[in-house]
Amino acid sequence: MTIKALVWGENIHEHKSEVVASIYPDGMHEAVARLLREDAGIEASTAVLQDPEHGLTEDVLARTDVLLWWGHADHAAVDDVVVERVARHVWEGMGLILLHSAHFSKIFKRLMGTPCALKWREAGERERIWVVNPRHPIAEGLPEFFELENEEMYGEPFSVPEPLETVFISWFQGGEVFRSGLTYRRGAGNIFYFRPGHETYPTYHDATVGKVLRNAVHWAHNRQGRYPGVHEAPNVPVEKALEAIEERGGKLHKSGEEGFR
Amino acid sequence: MTIKALVWGENIHEHKSEVVASIYPDGMHEAVARLLREDAGIEASTAVLQDPEHGLTEDVLARTDVLLWWGHADHAAVDDVVVERVARHVWEGMGLILLHSAHFSKIFKRLMGTPCALKWREAGERERIWVVNPRHPIAEGLPEFFELENEEMYGEPFSVPEPLETVFISWFQGGEVFRSGLTYRRGAGNIFYFRPGHETYPTYHDATVGKVLRNAVHWAHNRQGRYPGVHEAPNVPVEKALEAIEERGGKLHKSGEEGFR
Amino acid sequence: MTIKALVWGENIHEHKSEVVASIYPDGMHEAVARLLREDAGIEASTAVLQDPEHGLTEDVLARTDVLLWWGHADHAAVDDVVVERVARHVWEGMGLILLHSAHFSKIFKRLMGTPCALKWREAGERERIWVVNPRHPIAEGLPEFFELENEEMYGEPFSVPEPLETVFISWFQGGEVFRSGLTYRRGAGNIFYFRPGHETYPTYHDATVGKVLRNAVHWAHNRQGRYPGVHEAPNVPVEKALEAIEERGGKLHKSGEEGFR
Amino acid sequence: MTIKALVWGENIHEHKSEVVASIYPDGMHEAVARLLREDAGIEASTAVLQDPEHGLTEDVLARTDVLLWWGHADHAAVDDVVVERVARHVWEGMGLILLHSAHFSKIFKRLMGTPCALKWREAGERERIWVVNPRHPIAEGLPEFFELENEEMYGEPFSVPEPLETVFISWFQGGEVFRSGLTYRRGAGNIFYFRPGHETYPTYHDATVGKVLRNAVHWAHNRQGRYPGVHEAPNVPVEKALEAIEERGGKLHKSGEEGFR
Repeated sequence: MTIKALVWGENIHEHKSEVVASIYPDGMHEAVARLLREDAGIEASTAVLQDPEHGLTEDVLARTDVLLWWGHADHAAVDDVVVERVARHVWEGMGLILLHSAHFSKIFKRLMGTPCALKWREAGERERIWVVNPRHPIAEGLPEFFELENEEMYGEPFSVPEPLETVFISWFQGGEVFRSGLTYRRGAGNIFYFRPGHETYPTYHDATVGKVLRNAVHWAHNRQGRYPGVHEAPNVPVEKALEAIEERGGKLHKSGEEGFR
Repeated sequence: MTIKALVWGENIHEHKSEVVASIYPDGMHEAVARLLREDAGIEASTAVLQDPEHGLTEDVLARTDVLLWWGHADHAAVDDVVVERVARHVWEGMGLILLHSAHFSKIFKRLMGTPCALKWREAGERERIWVVNPRHPIAEGLPEFFELENEEMYGEPFSVPEPLETVFISWFQGGEVFRSGLTYRRGAGNIFYFRPGHETYPTYHDATVGKVLRNAVHWAHNRQGRYPGVHEAPNVPVEKALEAIEERGGKLHKSGEEGFR
Repeated sequence: MTIKALVWGENIHEHKSEVVASIYPDGMHEAVARLLREDAGIEASTAVLQDPEHGLTEDVLARTDVLLWWGHADHAAVDDVVVERVARHVWEGMGLILLHSAHFSKIFKRLMGTPCALKWREAGERERIWVVNPRHPIAEGLPEFFELENEEMYGEPFSVPEPLETVFISWFQGGEVFRSGLTYRRGAGNIFYFRPGHETYPTYHDATVGKVLRNAVHWAHNRQGRYPGVHEAPNVPVEKALEAIEERGGKLHKSGEEGFR
Repeated sequence: MTIKALVWGENIHEHKSEVVASIYPDGMHEAVARLLREDAGIEASTAVLQDPEHGLTEDVLARTDVLLWWGHADHAAVDDVVVERVARHVWEGMGLILLHSAHFSKIFKRLMGTPCALKWREAGERERIWVVNPRHPIAEGLPEFFELENEEMYGEPFSVPEPLETVFISWFQGGEVFRSGLTYRRGAGNIFYFRPGHETYPTYHDATVGKVLRNAVHWAHNRQGRYPGVHEAPNVPVEKALEAIEERGGKLHKSGEEGFR
């Protein structure tokens, strides 16, 4: 079964910054998609902020197994309607992988329910990413650690909820640490936050980063398909109770009536 | 140190339903506040939907250690600005206790990042609440289980994130189960969801329910005061790095510049 | 890739109790293995307490992807050496599924680090198992709930560590609840506890139970193979530090020396 | 209410190593106890390996609210009977704080159910401990990070179960990271692992380390007293079921009989 991955890119700095354009001439989204395509089991397409509905129409999302998200310069430009649509698909089972500065994307903050803030420094310093959960599916085939010689620093505290599992922790040359790989489940959707990927460095040309992203797509993929029931709050009428009961006490609702939301 | 608790009530059904009015003539919020006042260490006040800014002004929240929330009939009437204000205070360390139908309140859904849906049946059936985490602070002084002879049924699946800890699980006469006591931490804020409390039954006159609520207020109280840093994403300039580093590679930001949000 | 599952049975009551023998004439382990074999992707074999080394030699375990464990009448008869061997394989990545009364098996208590105690009643009452985590891999293809008309009751509190995820919660006719499906990870090993399976009832002839067990085998299987490094505490000599450092301060150990264990 | 803390020290290197003896002339256990005594709410006593029953008799443990454990050179010398006794008290509600090389103590491995292995290097390098969970009770009053200029390095992966919460993460000068503050709950017992404390450095003379330890004692203290029920597996006879049921199906046990363990 081929996994349908969609790489969403903000696609701004590629056109404004010569540095970024020189590293990612086809856009960062395309570089990420190429890393995914090294796995024949993943079919990767792309969408960008500038597309109608940001390329995230109901139709497109309904066909997406795992969405990868990179944004930085203009999180605010993402339409709230689209953010809610993506959240709905995640709850129903679409996987979501947040990349680097997507920690401040509307969709990540929406799903975490926290500020998702952190420290940062853009100095091209060394990052060493340690696997703290060996044999986790997202760490499959990785060495004990891997290094990115030039990366932006992100430092703790990272104001996110306690994760299901911590997979990676980064060491930075300038003295900070960061939980760089965190897993969550929201509804039927598997969510992975992966720290590296500053636009002025060639991180998405790194082979190990590619391996992590492919692993994460496999991990995030919920092969059981969508679960629309995640939103539903059905009334169970007394006469259909699984065990025979009699109605007692005061009531607000008539039998079979919809509840308040 | 006295804990300042604020009980927020929607205060609608008390005025529309004779059943509710007869059980809670002073309002449900007042009944909850009375349960809290049995503990001399808790100072409980109230606020309602109909107050200006729903009684949840910046000033009021700044003085609140733990907020308790009951709403049902008109979650939509709560102003989004107030919801964000409450969320901010929770992240900074204000405790939050969600009661019963508050599972669908804007503030709970905002902090969970999930639909928070569930099954329900209003039949006055028996609920038996089991303590699954004995000696948890919220279960202090409780028996192995306690019963509410008439309650609304809430049934799984409850679409919330995996909690930090599950404290209570309910058995319902009609055949369902429900995770009735769940703890979360969002930023510096402790959050507790407690299931019972349907407005047509005298749940907030029950002594054991009172004990749970008082325990929960103590547990949720973060005595360290507010932590405004939870929102901040400070730049750490290269020259102030904890370990000496030299700037390398391409850059987007000038030194000391604010990051994108 | 075929998953190699090994079903371990205590194999005592099948020979002492006519009731059990009549339901499981080939042994409970064989009934469980048959359920697994309905999936062509699972190769299921069996081992019993009475085999030399309980059928759990180093060789056998090294070839096992997922071990399923059922025991009740004589947990104490399992050799401690074998328990440690199984634990080691779990830490290195072998999946482990604990069935019913295996809550008191030496291996489960060893891996949980808690008493694993619970309430019980053998009355053939109705158990209704609710899926609280829909679309979890272990719940794949299941309805919202399923019933076992005759089962032993297990009641909370269940003294186990807070799980990674709660998958199932049971409702019992006599008034109790129980967390019937719990996931853990210990080292590289995925662990699942599944409650049903009392020997005097035909639980392991139930189709839905079979589906759960097959799902659980797939979920517990760590396809990355064994990770012997889980036990190792390697010294990293100063001269091999990833960042250049100089030795300072007092020392206990000579360079390259083994640490204390 | 005064909290009764007991500091257990292995008390070997203080007598064998001049370096250790010069830093901790009264023993490491005494240095830790002194840090605790700076809080008038904590009453700290000590016990050592060489005491009869290692100073951990039933009587002593029954009077202990929180036990702190430091060991390194001879974990094997601790009697298994005492280890089981301590584990029992933890399950019943005694707090336990594991210090540094106690990661390999019998009691920590017993309660975690994993190997608890890690990397290490004794080079007196700089450790910077970051608070990743600000306003957690164990981080009360701490700055964003604190430094120990000379410490032993412990590096990931640390083979322990996923914690309830991660409080601290360490950065090491030589390039490694480590989860230095982890919380667990086992039965009614709160457990905290705190990394620093190599015997050849003056870590237990550090004021911030003292603050962490005092905070941890307060956090680990379960003021509800012991919970012996954590071990019990009571039979609930049919005639005492909370809901009226009739016995059905085959049986192994006679009514009221003890279960198998």
